[in-house]
Order: sequence, then structure tokens, then C-alpha cells
Amino acid sequence: MKFKPGRIFLFRVPEGEDLLEAINRFAESRGINAGVVMGIGSLRNPVVGYYSEEEKKYRSIKLSGTFELLSLNGNISLKEGKSFAHLHVTLGDEEGRVFGGHLIRGDVFVAEVYIGELIGEPLERKDMGNNLWLWEAER
Amino acid sequence: MKFKPGRIFLFRVPEGEDLLEAINRFAESRGINAGVVMGIGSLRNPVVGYYSEEEKKYRSIKLSGTFELLSLNGNISLKEGKSFAHLHVTLGDEEGRVFGGHLIRGDVFVAEVYIGELIGEPLERKDMGNNLWLWEAER
Amino acid sequence: MKFKPGRIFLFRVPEGEDLLEAINRFAESRGINAGVVMGIGSLRNPVVGYYSEEEKKYRSIKLSGTFELLSLNGNISLKEGKSFAHLHVTLGDEEGRVFGGHLIRGDVFVAEVYIGELIGEPLERKDMGNNLWLWEAER
Repeated sequence: MKFKPGRIFLFRVPEGEDLLEAINRFAESRGINAGVVMGIGSLRNPVVGYYSEEEKKYRSIKLSGTFELLSLNGNISLKEGKSFAHLHVTLGDEEGRVFGGHLIRGDVFVAEVYIGELIGEPLERKDMGNNLWLWEAER
Repeated sequence: MKFKPGRIFLFRVPEGEDLLEAINRFAESRGINAGVVMGIGSLRNPVVGYYSEEEKKYRSIKLSGTFELLSLNGNISLKEGKSFAHLHVTLGDEEGRVFGGHLIRGDVFVAEVYIGELIGEPLERKDMGNNLWLWEAER
Repeated sequence: MKFKPGRIFLFRVPEGEDLLEAINRFAESRGINAGVVMGIGSLRNPVVGYYSEEEKKYRSIKLSGTFELLSLNGNISLKEGKSFAHLHVTLGDEEGRVFGGHLIRGDVFVAEVYIGELIGEPLERKDMGNNLWLWEAER
């Protein structure tokens, strides 16, 4: 899908909030229906997901401690008519080792988030019947 | 080089395609000569490269299984007159461990890709004689 | 904070420069007061930081050798009135293993950097008294 650029936001999420909830609430409250998301920071006790093709669902991976948020990448689109952020993260520990997955939750110590709004036709996720909600594919 | 923003694309690559080929074909078919690329998703059996300074070439690293595509970052410019995507990836396994490199290939399970077109003077890669094709450097 | 898009830069940092210094100098010389930064490439002997909540400071992690720069993510804002880049990196070794942290330094072998300037009210970092300089938080 083709879009035009909309508003741009660069902001710090307050300490103690859940990063995914905070981004979803930010998008919902500003009426951001589509966008690109990036960010860096530091998260406490993050939980990430790995989608298992065999089990057709996400497995949860719980990480303990505070991790540098090395990359936060993803997008905002619509799921059941609401702003919905789909985000993946990489996380670094005190030795510089890196872990990551689909962001399920993570308490913010610091999070500096960029959202570039996209203006265009509605971009809707649809239930694929395997615990994945996806857009129509496009070549 | 300085650019102005062009078209913006946010789309899902069909399952089963090779991610690098799909992005190159998408760019070529839309006439995208320069751009920034980001994405997330899930890849099957990705192959990534590590450029060895001693050997002056990329070594291939084959990963087996399905990996969360945690970050897809890179750009589009011109190589021998054609749209050419240079992309790096990080990939997460079922334990949350992360691997990555220069994207050589990877079968798409899911890929949600953002391309921000850049409008300006042609940005051309030139053969550096060491299996690297680079732009002119700039301070 | 809400911004409008400004100039866009996509450029290669010369080999041998320090990546963080080069980006700060690029931003300062162009008068970029706020922006989003992304990039890929390859760094020699990078040093990354992990912020320890207990010690209230960054620990340095020195990596030896040449690493693929898999993701460079972050932003530019003002610190004590000057353009200041806050950047996180993930780095891949010859086996595809990934390390990362807050970018402290790294000699450029190759670095392809995107900066999207943001135009708006000044975005200033303030000393939090724990070796962190942060923006005002925002919901």
C-alpha cells in the first residue's frame, strides 16, 4: 500500500509503563491509524514471543533483569478497527549478549520512540486462523 | 547526499518469496531509485553474510529453521543502473537467541516492509575492487 | 513532541572515522537539532555501553575485531545546546552471533547512515543526576 507522510512524533515514554501498551495508547489517543515505529532505550524484565509454525502460536520467552533496548522496529495499522502496534525488539545484557523476539511486554526504564504517521487507505489486519493477524499480501 | 521524501510503501511480502528478491523487484517495478528500508516478520532458513576484511569477500552463514525477523534495516540505491537493496538483518530463534548478518537470502513466512522513497540526485554504488560496491564517502 | 519532516540525508561515512563522532559532526555542521537515525555497515573494534541501574552509570563492553553493523538506531536532539546523537547498535561476528549496546565508539569500515531531520520545538536533554540525560516524558 502507498501512503503519504503524516505527523511525526519523537517522545520519551514515562518510566514504569509497559512499552507496548504505551505505544498502543499513544497511537489510539492521537488517531494514528497507520505508521512506522522505531526506538531505543532500556527495558526491565521484557517478555518476547517466538511464533512456532508447528504449534501455530507464540511461545513466550521471559527475560529477567534490565536490558538495553537496542532496536524497536515495527508498524501501526488497524486490528478490529483499533490502532494496533506490531513490534519486534532486540535486547542487550550487561555482557553485550543479545536476545529478542516479538514484543509482548516490557517495563520501561527509558524508551525514546519515533512514530511516523502514514496517511492513506485503511490498512487492516485480518485473522488468518493461526493466531496471526496479517494484511493482504502484495507484490 | 541530501534528498526529499517521495512515496511511502508499507506492505506484506507474500509467503514463500525470497525477501531480498521481493524487495528488489518491488523497488524496480515502482522505479524506486533511492530509499530507506525497514521491516519485521519471520524468515525460514535465512542465509546471512559476514564480510571478511582478510579474504575481501562475504562468507555465507546458513541458519536452519524459522526465525523471527527482529530487524530489517538498509537502503535502496543504484548498482549498474538498477534499483539495489542493501539490507542487514537480526534474527531470533525459539529461545530468544539472536543471529544476524548481511541479508543474502531468506524465505518469507511473514514480512512487513516499509520503504521510504528518497528523491534527489542519483546515488550510485561503485565497484571498490574488493567485492564491495559503495557510494562516494561524505563528511 | 510533534514534528514536521525536514531534510533527509543518506550518506557513507569515510573509512577510519569514529561512527559516533562522525554523526555528531555531520549533524552539528548541518544544523540538525532533531532527527531520527538509522544505518548499516561494518565496524572495527566497537565499544558499547550497558547502563547499570545499580551503579547508575554505563559499563563499557569492548569488542575485538570487525563486526557487521546490523542495526544502528537512534535519534538526534539537543544536549547543552549542541546536536547530540543517542545511538544503539547490534553487531554480528563471523559466525553470525550478535552483540550490542549503547554506541560508545567504533571505527568505521563501512557505514551507510540515514538521518531524517525533524522540525519543531527544541527537544532538549536534561541531566537526571544518574549519568542519564533525558527528555521530558510524555504520554
